[in-house]
Amino acid sequence: MSKFNMSTTDAAIAAISLDRAGAAPLHVQLTSQLRDMILSGRIAPGGRLPGSRAFAGDLGVSRITVTTSMDQLVAEGFAEGRHGKGLFVAPHLPDTSLKITGYDEPFEIRPIDKGRSAPLPFQPAAHDARLFPHQEWAKLLEQAWRNADTRTASGIDPSGHPALREAIAHHLHEWRGLRCQPTQVFVTAGGGDATQLLIRALGLAGHDVILEDPGYPLFASELLQQGVGVVPVAVDVDGLDPAAMSEARLAIVTPSRHYPTGVTMPLARRLDLLAWSDRHQALILEDDFDSEYRYRGTPLPTLIGLADNERVLYMGSFSKVFTPQLRLGYLVVPEPLVASFEQVLRERGPLASAVAQPALAQFMVSGRFATHIRRMRRVYSARQQALVESVSRHLSGLLEVQAEAGGMHLTATLSAALSARMSDTEVSQRATEAGLVLPALSSYSAASAGLQGLLMGYSGFDETELDSACATLAGLLQM
Amino acid sequence: MSKFNMSTTDAAIAAISLDRAGAAPLHVQLTSQLRDMILSGRIAPGGRLPGSRAFAGDLGVSRITVTTSMDQLVAEGFAEGRHGKGLFVAPHLPDTSLKITGYDEPFEIRPIDKGRSAPLPFQPAAHDARLFPHQEWAKLLEQAWRNADTRTASGIDPSGHPALREAIAHHLHEWRGLRCQPTQVFVTAGGGDATQLLIRALGLAGHDVILEDPGYPLFASELLQQGVGVVPVAVDVDGLDPAAMSEARLAIVTPSRHYPTGVTMPLARRLDLLAWSDRHQALILEDDFDSEYRYRGTPLPTLIGLADNERVLYMGSFSKVFTPQLRLGYLVVPEPLVASFEQVLRERGPLASAVAQPALAQFMVSGRFATHIRRMRRVYSARQQALVESVSRHLSGLLEVQAEAGGMHLTATLSAALSARMSDTEVSQRATEAGLVLPALSSYSAASAGLQGLLMGYSGFDETELDSACATLAGLLQM
Repeated sequence: MSKFNMSTTDAAIAAISLDRAGAAPLHVQLTSQLRDMILSGRIAPGGRLPGSRAFAGDLGVSRITVTTSMDQLVAEGFAEGRHGKGLFVAPHLPDTSLKITGYDEPFEIRPIDKGRSAPLPFQPAAHDARLFPHQEWAKLLEQAWRNADTRTASGIDPSGHPALREAIAHHLHEWRGLRCQPTQVFVTAGGGDATQLLIRALGLAGHDVILEDPGYPLFASELLQQGVGVVPVAVDVDGLDPAAMSEARLAIVTPSRHYPTGVTMPLARRLDLLAWSDRHQALILEDDFDSEYRYRGTPLPTLIGLADNERVLYMGSFSKVFTPQLRLGYLVVPEPLVASFEQVLRERGPLASAVAQPALAQFMVSGRFATHIRRMRRVYSARQQALVESVSRHLSGLLEVQAEAGGMHLTATLSAALSARMSDTEVSQRATEAGLVLPALSSYSAASAGLQGLLMGYSGFDETELDSACATLAGLLQM
Repeated sequence: MSKFNMSTTDAAIAAISLDRAGAAPLHVQLTSQLRDMILSGRIAPGGRLPGSRAFAGDLGVSRITVTTSMDQLVAEGFAEGRHGKGLFVAPHLPDTSLKITGYDEPFEIRPIDKGRSAPLPFQPAAHDARLFPHQEWAKLLEQAWRNADTRTASGIDPSGHPALREAIAHHLHEWRGLRCQPTQVFVTAGGGDATQLLIRALGLAGHDVILEDPGYPLFASELLQQGVGVVPVAVDVDGLDPAAMSEARLAIVTPSRHYPTGVTMPLARRLDLLAWSDRHQALILEDDFDSEYRYRGTPLPTLIGLADNERVLYMGSFSKVFTPQLRLGYLVVPEPLVASFEQVLRERGPLASAVAQPALAQFMVSGRFATHIRRMRRVYSARQQALVESVSRHLSGLLEVQAEAGGMHLTATLSAALSARMSDTEVSQRATEAGLVLPALSSYSAASAGLQGLLMGYSGFDETELDSACATLAGLLQM
């Protein structure tokens, strides 16, 4: 201490006490005590700090301990060097910096209210956790992460895990007759991300895209957000009508089962749609979101299978057919467009989490995915039948539903008597208040007077739950 | 057969033969044979199909078998009903529809060329799969999916799994002194998705955002894509300079360790930055992408911890600190902005896959995440030291690096002698040709004459690999 004047800084520094038996290294203890003194004002802003040699001598520590500590204080902004004059406490440390001395005050982190995890009755496309193959899936995830071959924690292919892209190509060949190579398959993370990838890879910004009306609302919102023109075209009993379609860069269609009305586009109209694409050099995105869930008959050939113009893209998802938890889907892209998709993904990085991709590939290759789909088909088909019966039992004269060949929901129409009393939006609101989820068909339309109806999901609920929810709904609509 | 005229249609139909012992139901066999006859032209387009009663009688099957089959053909577009006249084969089935008869032709699905999965030397922020806790992580994933409490295959909270949001709040409190509630934490799927969420929740479209120059390229590309104005501001040895910042809606900064130069923003400048935010009512996003990897000294207080204006958001990621495979990150949002983020996520759906979220929460809560970070810190710190030594051993007079307090890469400067011969871009190109990944610092700049330098990642490579790669690089740069 004797070597420098005993200023307030020196007095404070004299109070430093280092614990050689302490857990923290000496330089950490020194930094911490100096920082506290600066923050508490015991060492005044602008004050000169002792030279390292003298300081080390006084403290009885090595000089490296002192210089390490001083370097840290400089890095943190508490001290600054002035050329040839040594180190000084920073001159301006406004009051707000004192807040950090409050780190040790108790702070209580409150748990989140977990709420209800099971879906509410009639939620469309809901999954029933009681039917999910938890044990099998847990085992596959574990094996994939243990297995040296699939240990890919070091990197991630932006286009998707190779084994999954291969499994998807095989699945689409077996289930839908598609003839695509794994290199044409791009793994995506759900509809929103897939739409963004399409916008960039196809250069859609500033161009028009035709959407079905009614249709899947996410497409319209994502496209509009990114400066793409959206042209809604009304759907009739055969789906989108190519005769009503003018020129556009792309049309997004759900020919297998229109979303949300459930109608199937007949073969003749599919061919007309391909002719429209030829006429305008336009692209088509075939959204085959739940074609695995078909309970009767064989599905029609896909557009991409019918096309010989390399202008049809195909989109699928594991959200409906397996679980939405994965956030995994895929795009199949014609050969001439592959390079453009690869380019966007290289720049942006992968869309999808790689955690589940090897396990999902194994689930598919081993045939267990097909077994799972077949099992869910039987369950969902029975639930659809149960819903039809429960609607006729409880809601006769109010709502009408017809059995459909596939899907995870039915679209109910309002009886004339009910329509006279309320709109589908009003029914939907009443249902929400009673703890039911019953989306209004008109809310899926861009047109101001959209089709009236209600989406009644059945996939997530057993026969008893569906019947009881129908009884509840009847109570809300009668009077 | 006698009941209707023996046209070519009738002749073909007479050839139908159903196998009562076959595996396929009779109506499926019937549909399939009729479809083949139509596609092969044996039943002519436009021809009348027999009435169901007569047809059933002739085939010796129930009438329901025939009507089910006919309904399917109508749904597929192969047949159509004419009012009061019965069913007819569709009149127009152009040649393209015949393609689907090729389903049975052999089609070979070729495996994807798997290529190299380990990262190439000097790849910044690379992960070393040899150090990843595969067994432990595999077990956690399995347990999370087996455990009934975390079985959430039925739904997914758009803001993230509650247990993970809680674990992140605790982690940030313990490691960074943050005082946030789990409800302020939003789980994201990497930088691109987080940026999109910010753009929508903060209404950034049409406004200006200040970015560090040089900086993380993904921010600029994502913002520009979505119609946000980007204002690059040069970084000096203390990071972003608030004195050079005009009005903007948001500034994105990396105060802990600037990306990619590694400089730390001193306390005084942090306070100036908060004053800028107060002056312009502007928001700040603090990107704390790898602050866990600090090898010496304690980190400075975070901006969000210093701020008392509720205008600082905080972003973190598990890509650097755990594995990029997860594609999981998070945003911490001031209380007044929480509702707006929740709203966007409800509309768009969750950003991140839920597969790993419960397991990651468990990894964090059990303390194993902290153990993993500490272990990696020791390894990375030693690798940084090894890189410094290897550069001085092999690249003396060509490149210069200095040890840094944290991070996963060092930024090398070109010696005067090397600079005279080539730019950082040319070094980077030569390196790429030799199988090294050595990004040019100037490529991170919006300015035409950006800082010259090279990013040398060390996290993914052991001491021997780093030394050998330095020797290779020396060979490329000498002469």
